[in-house]
Amino acid sequence: MKRLTVGIIGGMGPAATLDLMDRMLRLSFGKSDQDCVRMLVDNNPLLPDRNLAIAGKGPSPGPQLAEMARGLEKSGADFLVIACNTAHAFAADIRAAISIPLLDMIAETVAALPAGSAPVGLMAAAGCLDAGLYQKALGARTILLPDRGALMTLLYDIKTGDTGAAIKARMATLAKGLADQGAAHIIAGCTEVPLVLGAGDVAVPLLDSTAILARAAMDIAYGRRALPVL
Amino acid sequence: MKRLTVGIIGGMGPAATLDLMDRMLRLSFGKSDQDCVRMLVDNNPLLPDRNLAIAGKGPSPGPQLAEMARGLEKSGADFLVIACNTAHAFAADIRAAISIPLLDMIAETVAALPAGSAPVGLMAAAGCLDAGLYQKALGARTILLPDRGALMTLLYDIKTGDTGAAIKARMATLAKGLADQGAAHIIAGCTEVPLVLGAGDVAVPLLDSTAILARAAMDIAYGRRALPVL
Repeated sequence: MKRLTVGIIGGMGPAATLDLMDRMLRLSFGKSDQDCVRMLVDNNPLLPDRNLAIAGKGPSPGPQLAEMARGLEKSGADFLVIACNTAHAFAADIRAAISIPLLDMIAETVAALPAGSAPVGLMAAAGCLDAGLYQKALGARTILLPDRGALMTLLYDIKTGDTGAAIKARMATLAKGLADQGAAHIIAGCTEVPLVLGAGDVAVPLLDSTAILARAAMDIAYGRRALPVL
Repeated sequence: MKRLTVGIIGGMGPAATLDLMDRMLRLSFGKSDQDCVRMLVDNNPLLPDRNLAIAGKGPSPGPQLAEMARGLEKSGADFLVIACNTAHAFAADIRAAISIPLLDMIAETVAALPAGSAPVGLMAAAGCLDAGLYQKALGARTILLPDRGALMTLLYDIKTGDTGAAIKARMATLAKGLADQGAAHIIAGCTEVPLVLGAGDVAVPLLDSTAILARAAMDIAYGRRALPVL
């Protein structure tokens, strides 16, 4: 069986990329190294801040993201993923630069949401919200959001390497607030969120965008699912 | 300050590569993503088995390792590391293919050993031992080895993704045996070993080759240490 190579556009932040690699690897282990999937990774934390760019307060990371994607394709990646929800705002820049498919983490995550019209809690970064990525994918669903400032402070705290008990408690409190307001599901729609929030930390089902992307990527790599059409 | 990009030749095994990245990242966290170091990673578990190759029982991974190194250089790496001690047996193949420096994990680890002539315990894979990598670097030191079959069984068990309590206990028992025989220090000279053995698990100081390589690479990336001469 042909095993496909996944390319990871990463570094946003770097810990979230390691988390995605870890989730993929846990879906890969077999009898030996050779049963696993090859991952080509550009874990580049030096990119311009995505949230500032989308707010019009800083340069776009689009050109550098496109360059990273080109490099991963040249190195042998069969398809690409981005280990960051917000960076999907620049997916058009990336797709224009490559001739291999790029998975869509937002679409994969929303596709994993059970059918129905129940309100959904969305824990996503300011840039992701401002770009409307999940809102467009969720259509008519009622979306409940946590306090934007509180979540952004937490996300940037996590980016300093802090995933300790206090940070976990603050994230769980934000998630609980959404469940209390009536969210039937909560989307961890920023790859920093699942670094400190697990399914056991919240009373309603958690849709973990990192876990969902990892599953999709490994299904494609092992040939259990077709490569998406370009 | 110029920040250098590290290229990681990985996948031997893939979990050990993630561990090396994690150690590097923990030495990198700052106030934001942008304080961290860019890592270009080829986490390629599909390479031919290194131990079999060195034993003359399988094809050499040398040509593929050289190709991976070339790809990392082309993608922008300023220097390279290999997330595997045994694969250093093929360092000449890699160096012949690139025009950037390749750090030497074996030399870095032995340089971290306190001066003196006390016996050292060496936990390394069969191929690493057969290639004489640590023996040459250690010179006249007395080297104590665990049972080869017992360690190899453990290393291949770890490569299936098992890092549970039973595996940890078996590794700690092997390390204890070396300390009991008189080892004043123990070298974790295979990157699978520190996945299940920490400094607190053994009564004598542990030289963790993954941690030592991560420190060396980050010292170089942040300009605290010069790039090695080619």
